[in-house]
Amino acid sequence: MPTSRLEAFSDGVFAIAITVLVLGIAAPVHTDHLLVRLLDLWPSYLGYVLSFLLIGLLWVNHHVMFEHIVHSDRLLMFVNVLLLMFVAFVPFVTAVLASTFRTGDDQSIAVVAYGLVLTLAGFMYNAMWVHARHGGLMDSTVTDAGVQRIRRRIRFGPLMYLFGAAVGYFVPILGIVVFAGLILFYWLPIPQLNAAGEKIGMR
Amino acid sequence: MPTSRLEAFSDGVFAIAITVLVLGIAAPVHTDHLLVRLLDLWPSYLGYVLSFLLIGLLWVNHHVMFEHIVHSDRLLMFVNVLLLMFVAFVPFVTAVLASTFRTGDDQSIAVVAYGLVLTLAGFMYNAMWVHARHGGLMDSTVTDAGVQRIRRRIRFGPLMYLFGAAVGYFVPILGIVVFAGLILFYWLPIPQLNAAGEKIGMR
Amino acid sequence: MPTSRLEAFSDGVFAIAITVLVLGIAAPVHTDHLLVRLLDLWPSYLGYVLSFLLIGLLWVNHHVMFEHIVHSDRLLMFVNVLLLMFVAFVPFVTAVLASTFRTGDDQSIAVVAYGLVLTLAGFMYNAMWVHARHGGLMDSTVTDAGVQRIRRRIRFGPLMYLFGAAVGYFVPILGIVVFAGLILFYWLPIPQLNAAGEKIGMR
Amino acid sequence: MPTSRLEAFSDGVFAIAITVLVLGIAAPVHTDHLLVRLLDLWPSYLGYVLSFLLIGLLWVNHHVMFEHIVHSDRLLMFVNVLLLMFVAFVPFVTAVLASTFRTGDDQSIAVVAYGLVLTLAGFMYNAMWVHARHGGLMDSTVTDAGVQRIRRRIRFGPLMYLFGAAVGYFVPILGIVVFAGLILFYWLPIPQLNAAGEKIGMR
Repeated sequence: MPTSRLEAFSDGVFAIAITVLVLGIAAPVHTDHLLVRLLDLWPSYLGYVLSFLLIGLLWVNHHVMFEHIVHSDRLLMFVNVLLLMFVAFVPFVTAVLASTFRTGDDQSIAVVAYGLVLTLAGFMYNAMWVHARHGGLMDSTVTDAGVQRIRRRIRFGPLMYLFGAAVGYFVPILGIVVFAGLILFYWLPIPQLNAAGEKIGMR
Repeated sequence: MPTSRLEAFSDGVFAIAITVLVLGIAAPVHTDHLLVRLLDLWPSYLGYVLSFLLIGLLWVNHHVMFEHIVHSDRLLMFVNVLLLMFVAFVPFVTAVLASTFRTGDDQSIAVVAYGLVLTLAGFMYNAMWVHARHGGLMDSTVTDAGVQRIRRRIRFGPLMYLFGAAVGYFVPILGIVVFAGLILFYWLPIPQLNAAGEKIGMR
Repeated sequence: MPTSRLEAFSDGVFAIAITVLVLGIAAPVHTDHLLVRLLDLWPSYLGYVLSFLLIGLLWVNHHVMFEHIVHSDRLLMFVNVLLLMFVAFVPFVTAVLASTFRTGDDQSIAVVAYGLVLTLAGFMYNAMWVHARHGGLMDSTVTDAGVQRIRRRIRFGPLMYLFGAAVGYFVPILGIVVFAGLILFYWLPIPQLNAAGEKIGMR
Repeated sequence: MPTSRLEAFSDGVFAIAITVLVLGIAAPVHTDHLLVRLLDLWPSYLGYVLSFLLIGLLWVNHHVMFEHIVHSDRLLMFVNVLLLMFVAFVPFVTAVLASTFRTGDDQSIAVVAYGLVLTLAGFMYNAMWVHARHGGLMDSTVTDAGVQRIRRRIRFGPLMYLFGAAVGYFVPILGIVVFAGLILFYWLPIPQLNAAGEKIGMR
């Protein structure tokens, strides 16, 4: 079974999850002192930017993986649905996170919840990659170096998200900094470690 | 008329219905004792997981059917729209289901409503399959064995959902267990009952 | 400019508009006497079914038109955006319509508003078709008979929606009956009036 | 890396952002004096039309750019995600804008916020275009004249949105007029300034 409809469906879920983030920010009901009211929503804007870049990034990584995965089976689809289940849950934990930074209560809980959802999503990437390699779902032209590069890339994710959650449990704002740092790190180009050629270097 | 735009439109509806499930879980307004507040939402998480896996599954089955259905006509489109109408209704019955498990009232009604929506969706799959076979909309290379396998698969669905609704009327939690069991069952690979070859076995 | 991205974008808007209809139905906050509470929402279910079948139908008609329209220009895109603007507004007038049938107040206003949105959407189909014919955007293989058939089909729509709005101003429920009748009429197969062949007959 | 999935993902975000605009208009809870209640929502309708045409326009411009940009790299994807982040934020500033025109308070703040989001989105178009040109991501057949025409077109946008925001700070309604004028201006055909041929003329 080719992966085209799986990719289209996943693209849809990524696109919707990223776009409904904005629905989590309620427009002020009263509009007197509007500037103050809008500025008071800063944790929501911060959460919006963080989660938008994050989901965008998860989408890019999905994209990169499915350049190499060219067949699908039922297990791959199942793990992919689990992955999307955590991605689509991000708007909820984002809203919770923003709420706690507005009220000042229990930010640590919200950061941990946010980090755990990311960790689980990251874990699913690894599960998909392992299954695709051992289940013969990869493009036959992919090189070992290419496989290793992506593996290193996606293996790092869930560990660091878990680290961010742990740090955030003690110092919430530091957990956010870890997540933001990770997102920026991932958006950087992949270092050119081998001779896999121009196409990889473009990424 | 080819089925490509029908599939794209259906993929869109499946992807949106699955992603708006999260909008049914309201983030806590107050964030003191956040952990307790978040844990209190367990029926919403359970409903989210159940319905996400379920809609994901319905999407996979749609996918599998449209590997064989390669032409469309107005009746097929109409039945497909009815199918999507029930799929897109799942977020509503999921929210109702979660509410009753939070309040403890009238869970049986909510389980029955949930099961009936699934039953109707499952019935539409059967209607589409019957029409596609008799209306000459199938790929000419499909084998009788392939048609039978899918027919067995989709015929089982609505009966079991109806059974889950009936069981759930008397013991709500047992109805949920039936639905969850069905979802897991469907996600398992199709047993290889005949010599239809490797591609089928991969599913 | 080919029409593929225009079709994909339009499919997206149709799919989202049809799926967010369900967000207009609020799950009951309290769940005691749930059956009564759920049954009390009957106008919302009716509105959901009516608008789902209607948007599905508008999508099919879009599909049929763009089998023949194979080039696009800026004006076509603009009219298409206006069309989508009315389609995406349907969830709002549906929610208003359902509210009035729950409260019993001012149903006539809601039916007129619903009908006018449909009328405007239907008008845009005609504008697109006229422009596509005179702007040289059609497939060169399309027959005059094919063009006439679609023209008859889409010309009828806005007039009847306007008629439904007018009737509904005096007898609201009768306006709904006109809309429902139209939707069913449109879902019926196109009568085979000429020798345009098998493909048309399939529709 | 080809741009097909980037375009599909972007189309999805544009389509969702444009369609969720309607969710920002709450249907009246009470329906007595419905006509008055519906007419009172005029700022929401105005905002809906303005933002629908605007997002539709941004989508068209994206479309036009990606006829020429045929390769993507990580930086292009990142800037594209930033662009989508501002596009997906439009429903929020639209809702705020409509609120202030209903209450009469602090409209200037809302117009400035609206204009700034547009300015940032417009800026990202320019960043993408500059990067695509210097990063070798363009179709090799594109002419200098074609590149210049699009550059002129997209360079104008953010400056004018900023101008609209500035004007709107002093006279809110005039800011709206500037935005509306810009939207109409952009929907007009591109003047045929050179001999780049029929295809450009069609636009």
